[in-house]
Amino acid sequence: MIRIGIVGGTGYTGVELLRILAMHPHAELAMITSRGEAGNAVAEMFPNLRGHIDLAFSEPDPARMAECDLVFFATPNGTAMRQVPQLLEKGVKVIDLAADFRLKDAALWRQWYGMEHACPELLAEAVYGLPEIYRDQVKDARLVANPGCYPTAVTLGWLPLVEQGLIDLEHLIADTKSGVSGAGRKAAVPTLMGESGESFKAYNVHGHRHQPEIRHNLERVTGKSVGLTFVPHLLPMIRGIHATLYGTIAGEYDLQTLYQERYANEPFVDVLPAGSHPETRTVKGVNHCRIAIHRPLGGDTVVVLSVIDNLVKGAAGQAVQNMNLMFGLDETAGLQGVALLP
Amino acid sequence: MIRIGIVGGTGYTGVELLRILAMHPHAELAMITSRGEAGNAVAEMFPNLRGHIDLAFSEPDPARMAECDLVFFATPNGTAMRQVPQLLEKGVKVIDLAADFRLKDAALWRQWYGMEHACPELLAEAVYGLPEIYRDQVKDARLVANPGCYPTAVTLGWLPLVEQGLIDLEHLIADTKSGVSGAGRKAAVPTLMGESGESFKAYNVHGHRHQPEIRHNLERVTGKSVGLTFVPHLLPMIRGIHATLYGTIAGEYDLQTLYQERYANEPFVDVLPAGSHPETRTVKGVNHCRIAIHRPLGGDTVVVLSVIDNLVKGAAGQAVQNMNLMFGLDETAGLQGVALLP
Amino acid sequence: MIRIGIVGGTGYTGVELLRILAMHPHAELAMITSRGEAGNAVAEMFPNLRGHIDLAFSEPDPARMAECDLVFFATPNGTAMRQVPQLLEKGVKVIDLAADFRLKDAALWRQWYGMEHACPELLAEAVYGLPEIYRDQVKDARLVANPGCYPTAVTLGWLPLVEQGLIDLEHLIADTKSGVSGAGRKAAVPTLMGESGESFKAYNVHGHRHQPEIRHNLERVTGKSVGLTFVPHLLPMIRGIHATLYGTIAGEYDLQTLYQERYANEPFVDVLPAGSHPETRTVKGVNHCRIAIHRPLGGDTVVVLSVIDNLVKGAAGQAVQNMNLMFGLDETAGLQGVALLP
Amino acid sequence: MIRIGIVGGTGYTGVELLRILAMHPHAELAMITSRGEAGNAVAEMFPNLRGHIDLAFSEPDPARMAECDLVFFATPNGTAMRQVPQLLEKGVKVIDLAADFRLKDAALWRQWYGMEHACPELLAEAVYGLPEIYRDQVKDARLVANPGCYPTAVTLGWLPLVEQGLIDLEHLIADTKSGVSGAGRKAAVPTLMGESGESFKAYNVHGHRHQPEIRHNLERVTGKSVGLTFVPHLLPMIRGIHATLYGTIAGEYDLQTLYQERYANEPFVDVLPAGSHPETRTVKGVNHCRIAIHRPLGGDTVVVLSVIDNLVKGAAGQAVQNMNLMFGLDETAGLQGVALLP
Repeated sequence: MIRIGIVGGTGYTGVELLRILAMHPHAELAMITSRGEAGNAVAEMFPNLRGHIDLAFSEPDPARMAECDLVFFATPNGTAMRQVPQLLEKGVKVIDLAADFRLKDAALWRQWYGMEHACPELLAEAVYGLPEIYRDQVKDARLVANPGCYPTAVTLGWLPLVEQGLIDLEHLIADTKSGVSGAGRKAAVPTLMGESGESFKAYNVHGHRHQPEIRHNLERVTGKSVGLTFVPHLLPMIRGIHATLYGTIAGEYDLQTLYQERYANEPFVDVLPAGSHPETRTVKGVNHCRIAIHRPLGGDTVVVLSVIDNLVKGAAGQAVQNMNLMFGLDETAGLQGVALLP
Repeated sequence: MIRIGIVGGTGYTGVELLRILAMHPHAELAMITSRGEAGNAVAEMFPNLRGHIDLAFSEPDPARMAECDLVFFATPNGTAMRQVPQLLEKGVKVIDLAADFRLKDAALWRQWYGMEHACPELLAEAVYGLPEIYRDQVKDARLVANPGCYPTAVTLGWLPLVEQGLIDLEHLIADTKSGVSGAGRKAAVPTLMGESGESFKAYNVHGHRHQPEIRHNLERVTGKSVGLTFVPHLLPMIRGIHATLYGTIAGEYDLQTLYQERYANEPFVDVLPAGSHPETRTVKGVNHCRIAIHRPLGGDTVVVLSVIDNLVKGAAGQAVQNMNLMFGLDETAGLQGVALLP
Repeated sequence: MIRIGIVGGTGYTGVELLRILAMHPHAELAMITSRGEAGNAVAEMFPNLRGHIDLAFSEPDPARMAECDLVFFATPNGTAMRQVPQLLEKGVKVIDLAADFRLKDAALWRQWYGMEHACPELLAEAVYGLPEIYRDQVKDARLVANPGCYPTAVTLGWLPLVEQGLIDLEHLIADTKSGVSGAGRKAAVPTLMGESGESFKAYNVHGHRHQPEIRHNLERVTGKSVGLTFVPHLLPMIRGIHATLYGTIAGEYDLQTLYQERYANEPFVDVLPAGSHPETRTVKGVNHCRIAIHRPLGGDTVVVLSVIDNLVKGAAGQAVQNMNLMFGLDETAGLQGVALLP
Repeated sequence: MIRIGIVGGTGYTGVELLRILAMHPHAELAMITSRGEAGNAVAEMFPNLRGHIDLAFSEPDPARMAECDLVFFATPNGTAMRQVPQLLEKGVKVIDLAADFRLKDAALWRQWYGMEHACPELLAEAVYGLPEIYRDQVKDARLVANPGCYPTAVTLGWLPLVEQGLIDLEHLIADTKSGVSGAGRKAAVPTLMGESGESFKAYNVHGHRHQPEIRHNLERVTGKSVGLTFVPHLLPMIRGIHATLYGTIAGEYDLQTLYQERYANEPFVDVLPAGSHPETRTVKGVNHCRIAIHRPLGGDTVVVLSVIDNLVKGAAGQAVQNMNLMFGLDETAGLQGVALLP
């Protein structure tokens, strides 16, 4: 059994991580810390965990944390980077579900996250935890940067086209839509049901932190500069991301086969039959990314549709997939459930 | 492995049964029949099952069905009763998720279901599959009548009070609310999202088929006549039933302890701490019934709150719980998941 | 034109009041105060008002407020009672949409609202603004206590039975359900879409402030003591209240005619044909209460279904109805719209 | 008063048209036909109209229809074209809310609608009822083709850029999202709440009938060929369309001023301040289109956000706007309401 600690964990990413770990055959939850909730039973805050998780939240305790094999950070951006160096030093592996280690460039990170990075020397070592690109590196990693939710859906959607150099890299467009759970569990007017229910809007069109993360991903793959327009929208539902990707393609290619072959051995990427329209509900609660490729009316614009559950493949599920790789387990351990439909 | 056949199975009860069986350690799905969908892959109709269920729907075939250990009927009312006798004769066990065998009285059944019963001689043998009352009988049953969704939530909510004779049996009130999946997956105007979204209403106040089923349940427990007002409502959400039960109680009792003790050994009934308000989402996708007991302002009215997932403990999950009992398995096999929250 | 001031008005009751007043033929909005939002345009906070309301929120200014003909308080409980005496003294009429003047008994008020009443001497004078009972008093009132949302739906639902003494007053049960807008527009975890969407629960079963208000209403009508069990629930939708009322009735009565005659001249109470089930969406955005009466299976329990829009007949619309009466206008002025469906 | 007939009218476009006409100061509803519902009261099918519309549906009667000043067709595609010639001959004006007269090219129409056009000779005469382009022609029209919902939102969003020739016409992208009411009120599995609630998907990516309509609109404006990728999506909500438009722009322009000036005198197009993100709920129930223009990160991609209520500016409201123009009324008559928020 892997001894696991969780820092943070009172948000939606946290409860989803707890849900998955509660059903994982090789995970033992040793501690979960929260200053604000210390002493309170986890199952009182998240009643779905009654009978599954007996732990209470505790004050952060570096000594006890150092006894874990692995610590997940489900904290706001800027928290993990202050504690990770000590943990690594003690031999504890770390998966950060926040953004602290997702970019390789400390200056770019500062620009988008508005603070100085606390341990820029670890940025090179940190492995970006998208197994479909970096599986081998994840296996050997001490520190994994778990990808953002939008970047997971968008990067997987474009990967085969970008790897093969088939698409115009200067005018990529990602029109993305997310359920409200992506905005977290903090009290805030815009995500009240009275505000976000029965309505739809774009947000942060001028610039969103996932734009540089996606560019970064694609530029590392292709080695070239990428021009990306990224527009996120808020859906009146709880879980799910749908990315609709637009790009210009020059010649005639069998894109369906390209995608199917690229992802043939991926346990969590499912390329749908030609002509399909993936629904977010078909991945609700599971770690899958479902993708369909279209070329409408035979034109030179390719349209890729990519869906994930933002809390699973976009956060906690992918983190557990990375854990499985880091500890030599079956990559799908604890992640074999079937999506809840309807 | 138990060889399983499913008759019907193109509705919401069907897909939920398939979801649970796909993850069950001792179940092997041998066939699923549907005249209308014969030849079509199950996973095409229900894309959440892609990669989990490879079967296609097939034409009903009595010979092949007779090779199963167990057949589930997930059909409209009145279908199972025409096929069950032959199956039992061949030694196949049956769980009917519809209403054909829920009442012991053929005349009462005719009155509420508007047709003559096809095999009234089996009504006495059929075991009402509410393990919290009839566990031992289920273990030995050839034929189980899986309870209705509302009757499950309401009967479990009232059971301890009725068993102990603490409540006025002449004026029981059950105000119940169900998500739209309870109305099934057939094309119909009233359950269009444009009709049932963002709205709330009662229905069938003049009389609903679950009223006699609940009365029947309580009268069998208590041996006395029961007066029940049952009002169902339609919730603008997909899954979940919430029953709010009102009754008059004479003296002072420790109801909290009564409920906790009654359900202490029940794996799927969870009595919440005093003062709680169960939320339907805490049982989404799982087989639990969560109950809280109140006595507002110290009066003589007791209020019981009881929640289930109508498709799980109210249908497919309870059916699998019954299957586990009938085949000597751990009662919780395949039913140990954690509810999806948020 | 009536010169109108609004105190508060940054919540859902406020925006609905502004929406109705913007379309009212005889209302002129002179000022709207909010300490927190002073200087900000109203239409920036509530973009539906762009082009309809040009005002900005302003600091409270007693002198300017005294120039109004009428001031609405759309403030938290306990605010109006500190400012009303001075306004009345200056000849300004007041409608309080909060609870400060709804109960006649200062001790009862203190018990439920947890503070000392600031002007108990005005409780006797304040008119409870339910025109269906107190129309004549409202016409002459200086100070109107606008009813609570649940009390409006429940009181109108029971009124004919209670006035005629046909129902057992000791065991009235009101099972009520409200959309989330009833909880207001303040940042809070429980009304996040991630928490209240796709779920249903009861709340405050041990005691809710609208219980004494409803009892008070019914006891004033009947002159007798009333025993009431009141259980509110939260609906996964934005607008609408549905009250399901249960009571015991002794003899045989033509309840349909009783209700139709009682409300025959009421512009905003609509008794539906026998056998109906009112839907909350049919009153979305309008000031109507729709009611249906049932006596299921011919028993001695009567079931009344009563729906309103909690923000209209349950708050802002009823306040404007009261305004119309206080200023001698057509009672329906500004309230003649048709509900938005779907 | 304008004597009005409606053909069809049992769908969502129909009930919205009835809602608006019920509040219109100069409209008198003379008849509404429906073969399937003949004899049934309109207000029984649409209870929000109780007390506002006393009419019953009637069998189609050409003689009575010929006595109307104006007939609206709220029928499936292919119905109006069979009845319009006779009506025009009798001097009755017609507004078709379906697609029969939206394209000028009968061959293109046949290609997309799968049937032969019944009166191609009227295609040239029919005026496309988008007043922001064709106001003067609408004023004189006998026959108006009311625009599609998506085409309204998209065409208004692009109009200033296309008129000024500032955008690359060969690679226009319209990523559009609609509430489920856009799919109509017919019984169908995909729009059940259990299917379309809490989920999101694209549909008809290979080709949707609104693609040629939008191209047609833009090509008529610019006189040049247009390349358009159009991807519609289904939102888990009832009303509202959000179009997110992407195009490539060469130089530096003050787009904010361009849009504000273009729409300065338009009563129903509202250009939001720079940096805004329009929400669909801010136009719920009203005839406005709200638009915001962005140029993210200073690149050469312009992003236009355009929202309407699909049933109002996208259907019934725009039809009434056209009616007002055709009969010399104030263009905003009956359309001055404020959106319902929340």
